[in-house]
Amino acid sequence: MALVVQKYGGTSMGTIERIRNVAKRVAKTYDAGNDMVVVVSAMSGETNKLVALANEVCEFPDNREYDVLVASGEQVSIALLAMCLKAMGYKAKSYHGWQVPIVTDSSYSKARIEKIEDENIRGDLKDGTIVIVAGFQGVDKGGSITTLGRGGSDTSAVALAAALKADVCEIYTDVDGVYTTDPNICSDACKIDKISYDEMLELASLGAKVLQIRSVEFAKKYNVDIHVRSSFNDNQGTMVTKEDKDMEAVLVSGIAYDKNEAKIAVMHVPDKPGIAAKLLSPLSDANISVDMIVQNVSEDGFTDFTFTVTKADFKKALNITKEAAKEINASNVTADENISKISVVGVGMRSHAGVATKMFQSLAQEGINIQMISTSEIKVSVVVDAKYTELAVRVLHDVFGLAGTAAKAE
Amino acid sequence: MALVVQKYGGTSMGTIERIRNVAKRVAKTYDAGNDMVVVVSAMSGETNKLVALANEVCEFPDNREYDVLVASGEQVSIALLAMCLKAMGYKAKSYHGWQVPIVTDSSYSKARIEKIEDENIRGDLKDGTIVIVAGFQGVDKGGSITTLGRGGSDTSAVALAAALKADVCEIYTDVDGVYTTDPNICSDACKIDKISYDEMLELASLGAKVLQIRSVEFAKKYNVDIHVRSSFNDNQGTMVTKEDKDMEAVLVSGIAYDKNEAKIAVMHVPDKPGIAAKLLSPLSDANISVDMIVQNVSEDGFTDFTFTVTKADFKKALNITKEAAKEINASNVTADENISKISVVGVGMRSHAGVATKMFQSLAQEGINIQMISTSEIKVSVVVDAKYTELAVRVLHDVFGLAGTAAKAE
Repeated sequence: MALVVQKYGGTSMGTIERIRNVAKRVAKTYDAGNDMVVVVSAMSGETNKLVALANEVCEFPDNREYDVLVASGEQVSIALLAMCLKAMGYKAKSYHGWQVPIVTDSSYSKARIEKIEDENIRGDLKDGTIVIVAGFQGVDKGGSITTLGRGGSDTSAVALAAALKADVCEIYTDVDGVYTTDPNICSDACKIDKISYDEMLELASLGAKVLQIRSVEFAKKYNVDIHVRSSFNDNQGTMVTKEDKDMEAVLVSGIAYDKNEAKIAVMHVPDKPGIAAKLLSPLSDANISVDMIVQNVSEDGFTDFTFTVTKADFKKALNITKEAAKEINASNVTADENISKISVVGVGMRSHAGVATKMFQSLAQEGINIQMISTSEIKVSVVVDAKYTELAVRVLHDVFGLAGTAAKAE
Repeated sequence: MALVVQKYGGTSMGTIERIRNVAKRVAKTYDAGNDMVVVVSAMSGETNKLVALANEVCEFPDNREYDVLVASGEQVSIALLAMCLKAMGYKAKSYHGWQVPIVTDSSYSKARIEKIEDENIRGDLKDGTIVIVAGFQGVDKGGSITTLGRGGSDTSAVALAAALKADVCEIYTDVDGVYTTDPNICSDACKIDKISYDEMLELASLGAKVLQIRSVEFAKKYNVDIHVRSSFNDNQGTMVTKEDKDMEAVLVSGIAYDKNEAKIAVMHVPDKPGIAAKLLSPLSDANISVDMIVQNVSEDGFTDFTFTVTKADFKKALNITKEAAKEINASNVTADENISKISVVGVGMRSHAGVATKMFQSLAQEGINIQMISTSEIKVSVVVDAKYTELAVRVLHDVFGLAGTAAKAE
């Protein structure tokens, strides 16, 4: 008898009919003799509705109350799924984050899981009960509700799988798995059968949207195998797992893009030690994550300093940066929301040179200007004008022969 | 400095604009130097939407999960009101039922408050924080979410006022107070300035809809003055308070009606001791409250046994009664959802005879047939065909001179 953790996203939970299908799928795995923990997201569209209400109140709603508000969506789904299963004659019980409890720190909207107490759930599992847990949410030490950020239900599922030492963590979504790039942009994008945690981390953080980045970090840390698959069919999906030899044979595994960032540039900054810290520490104090950072070579003792943040944090970050720029006598702050980040990812890069060069050449041939560059061991990212997103993705998918590569890997 | 508990219903919380108005009203009372605890209901319509989802799953959704589902509505309102107040620069903090905690028994959907721990709230009040509590909900000893039944937010407010020894409990609603009858039916219905707990209990239980009956029981038990008033203006409303001399001078204080009951009759019941118990105990086992009960005089050793339940419990009650009737060899069970209960209420009845006679005569003159009768010290209720509801209310309001009485009392 295995312990299976399954996670269903908002689309899979979008209507009562779909929730009933989820219940059938859960029941099938349970009937096969497995213990079951099911993590669910809010019904699709619900979280957006709640966020719209908050924004109707004011531009920057209170952080604690924002989490109280948006966590209500998952409360609805856990109850409905438990009802469905009980109506089908199964033992089932819903859990809020605080009922598990899933203990987090107090960084509202971006809380990190610190501890999962598993006695309550284990008791129910022993009793043959199907345990249904609200994804995306937890509770801090003061008893306030916290949320884990968009896509946080993935992290809830992986963290529960780690805490309960589950045999597998299945993440159900509305696509068949992880693709070499967005199939909406490249019709010849291929499903990847197996991908390493590190590659998935790069793809996730770069906007592949299939898994929340933190869930992959968690999975890597605790060695949880994640099976990403569709809730609308029985196809084998993508296994996210430890790196192995086969993976290294592939130079590039995928092309990711992210339209959800914005660029802030501080011009004519006096080039003195400590300037970067002075600009960035007010942002981290406000719990805003900065993604790419570029500082140009100094000219006449002055330099330009550019970075990107998510669009959600953009307005707040811009205000903070303008204040910080004044204090260090920087001449001007410019901003651009109209950008896109394009990335080429693959563990094979470690042992093969020339990926970056090939990428830059291909983009130049299409007349696409590169605004920022950032690299890691297994990825190269560039920022370009948002209007080139689709063109850039298609060109790179083609240049790195991904339709072919993925097909060969199968 | 006084401690004020205010409760705002779903209509008052119906849109962000209205929630903003509630925030202004709360702020005004706070600025006048009061400590504030605010209890809120779900935004109007939300609870109905959630109930509809549950009914889409199945006819009799699981009780525990039903409460998890419907309690989510209040979670949204507390967060939005706290956000509004914080955006206005006030200290405010939202509380779920479990965060207070408001401890109840485990009768899902009809839970009774057993204990309110007030340390958390008192700590916040001392700190100058406006405390916002989700109405309608609590938590049982096993840590499951419970709800107090429709209108339960009134009870939450009164129970909090009692626990915190508040100076006043203001129940804000969409009408100016308690009226001599429904102004939608009688255009000359008058607002009552002061009414006793007992009269209000009868009016509430008979469908006056302004206050949940249990909240009035609570108020009577703990001697909490309730001020029922409108959230859309600053008019003085109705004080619900201890009985005094003035109240006894008025023969009839109000006419109530209730279309929310259904009648179940068990025909040809063998008239032996213990029959009533055999019919009713399966209902109370299923946590269904029976309201009026009438048993006719026995004929040939057989009798008819009639009772009413709420329409929400009707289908379940009918199934249970059919089973029970079989066991006691009763010949037949008939049912009628198309009924209305009309009641005349007033503490003055205790010392004045003839109210019932006058009521029956007036209805007979209009050709309205009385199907069932039930009386208490301070009220007379009759069940009639639902189509006569408005006519019966108008006739009785007129016959007992209520437009005039209330005007005189002002």
